[in-house]
Amino acid sequence: MATSNARVLAQPLRLACIQLASNTDKAANLSHARDLVLEAAREGAKLVVLPECFNSPYGCDFFPSYAETLLPHPPSAEQSPSYHALSSMAAEAGVFLVGGSIPEADPDPATKKYYNTSLTFGPDGALLGTHRKVHLFDIDIPGKIKFKESDVLFPGNKVSIIELPGYGKIAVAICYDVRFPELATIAARQGCFALIYPGAFNTTTGPLHWSLLGRARAMDNQLYVALCSPARDVKAAYPAYGHTMIVDPMAEVLDEAGEEEGIVSWVLDGDIIRDTRRNIPLSTQRRFDIYAAISKGYA
Amino acid sequence: MATSNARVLAQPLRLACIQLASNTDKAANLSHARDLVLEAAREGAKLVVLPECFNSPYGCDFFPSYAETLLPHPPSAEQSPSYHALSSMAAEAGVFLVGGSIPEADPDPATKKYYNTSLTFGPDGALLGTHRKVHLFDIDIPGKIKFKESDVLFPGNKVSIIELPGYGKIAVAICYDVRFPELATIAARQGCFALIYPGAFNTTTGPLHWSLLGRARAMDNQLYVALCSPARDVKAAYPAYGHTMIVDPMAEVLDEAGEEEGIVSWVLDGDIIRDTRRNIPLSTQRRFDIYAAISKGYA
Repeated sequence: MATSNARVLAQPLRLACIQLASNTDKAANLSHARDLVLEAAREGAKLVVLPECFNSPYGCDFFPSYAETLLPHPPSAEQSPSYHALSSMAAEAGVFLVGGSIPEADPDPATKKYYNTSLTFGPDGALLGTHRKVHLFDIDIPGKIKFKESDVLFPGNKVSIIELPGYGKIAVAICYDVRFPELATIAARQGCFALIYPGAFNTTTGPLHWSLLGRARAMDNQLYVALCSPARDVKAAYPAYGHTMIVDPMAEVLDEAGEEEGIVSWVLDGDIIRDTRRNIPLSTQRRFDIYAAISKGYA
Repeated sequence: MATSNARVLAQPLRLACIQLASNTDKAANLSHARDLVLEAAREGAKLVVLPECFNSPYGCDFFPSYAETLLPHPPSAEQSPSYHALSSMAAEAGVFLVGGSIPEADPDPATKKYYNTSLTFGPDGALLGTHRKVHLFDIDIPGKIKFKESDVLFPGNKVSIIELPGYGKIAVAICYDVRFPELATIAARQGCFALIYPGAFNTTTGPLHWSLLGRARAMDNQLYVALCSPARDVKAAYPAYGHTMIVDPMAEVLDEAGEEEGIVSWVLDGDIIRDTRRNIPLSTQRRFDIYAAISKGYA
C-alpha cells in the first residue's frame, strides 16, 4: 500500500503520441518518424511514442522480411537500422522515445524466431528498456477478423517497466497486451505513472473495445494511459483503427485522433494521479485477504 | 483453462433488473418490490434483481434503524421481515431473486456491527446464497461527493458465487465492489455466467464510471454483467444515478434504464459467452507465468 498516495511523477511531462502513416518502405518510414518526433519535441513533448510496427506493414507475411536482429547488444547499424534511427531521433529531439514496435529476428536464423519488440531510448540516445509483446494476437471473429501472430511470432516473457530519470516510471506493452489487465495492475503497483501501449487495433475490434480498454485500464489503476495507433491506410492488408488517445487517471479521454496521421498530446501531472488516488482510495481499500485465488487461474 | 470454452449457462435465461423507486417506508418498499418482481416474472424473467438498499433509504444515518438480524439462520419474521418478504416473492413469482441488499445488524447489539447484505432466493423460496459488501464505500471527491460507509458498516469477507440449479452460477457483489476487478476475475474463472451488482452510484461517480465499470468487467471476463440501481429520487439524501443496465460478454449494453423506475430485461445465452471466448480466447492466452506479482500487492 506504500505507493498509493506517493508522487509517482516527479514533475509535469508533456506526452505526445504520433499516429504515424507508414508504408512498405522502411527507410522512408524511419525518416518520416524522425520528422514527426522532432515536430512533437518542438511543441514541447518530453516523452514521445510511436505506434506498433511503425517501420513496416503489419502482418505475419511481413514480419520476417522486415525483422532486424537486436542481440547481442548493441546491434550494428547493419543489423538494426531501426535501432540506430530511434536512438538518433531521441537524441536529436532530446526526448524519451518509446519507439513503437518493430519486428525482431533471433540472431540465429535457424531458429526462425521473430518477436514484436518495443525499444525505448533516453534523450541521450541510450537504450532504457525493451518490451517484447507478451500476448500474441490470435483471434478469429467469423466474417470479421482473423489473425494469428503466433504463426510467426514468439512472445516476450516479462512485464516491462522503464525508468525515465527525473520523472518516474512507465510501463510499455504492445497492442493485444492491453486486453490482459494483469500487466497494467502489476505496473501500477510498481509505481508507474503511465501505461504506454503502441498498438494497431483494426476496424472490427477498434470500435468495440479500443477506447473501453484504454479507459478501463486508467480507471482501475488510476494512472495515465496512452494508446498509440498507426494512421488508417484503407489500402493496407491490415487497416489500423487509428484513434490514438491519452486517458487520464479518472478515465477521461484527454486527446484523441481520428483516422488520419497526427500528433495527440497532453501534459501529464503527478498531482492528478495523487488526487485521484486520495479521492477514491482503491489501493488502500483492496482486500488481498480474499483475492488469493487471483493468481491461481481457472477452476 | 478448463472452463474457457465450456458452456457456463446451461439454457437461455431471461434476466430482469428492477430499477425500484423506494422511500422511507420499509413495508411499502417490500410491497412495491413484490409488485415489480411479479411483473418481471409475468414478462418471462427467471432471474430477477433488486437494487442496493431497496428496502430503505441509502445512508449511514439510516443503516442502524433499518437493519435486521439474519443470524442464526433462518431468522424469524420479526427479526427480518425483508428476508421473509423476499423468500415469499421469489416463490410466488417462481424466480431466482437477487434481493438487492438490505442493512443487516449483528445479532448482538452490543457489537454495533452492521453490514450491507444481499440475499438470493430460489423459485422455491429457499435461500441460495448471501453476500456482504466486501469493499466499503469510503470516498471523498472534494466539492462533489463524500461518503464513508465504514463509519457504520463492517465488510464481508468472501467472493460470493451462487449456483442457480438448472442454469449455472452467478456472482453477487454490491456497488463499490465493482471497482475491484479481482472479485469479477475470480468469479469468471470459477465458471460464472453473470456478475450481478445491485448498486447505487451517485450523480458524480455515475456519469464518470458506472457504465465504464460494467462494460469493463464484461469485456475483461467475457460474461454478462448486470448493474441494478434504485430509481433517482432528487429529494433523497443520496440521489442514486439510475441507469440500471445489462451488458453482454462483448461489452455491448443490451438494455439500459434512464433515471425513472422501470424494468431492464434481456435473455442471457450461454452460446454468446462460448462464442466470445472462442473468438477472442483470452482465457487460454493468459500468461500466469509472468503474473506472479498480481497477488502480492503494492511495491
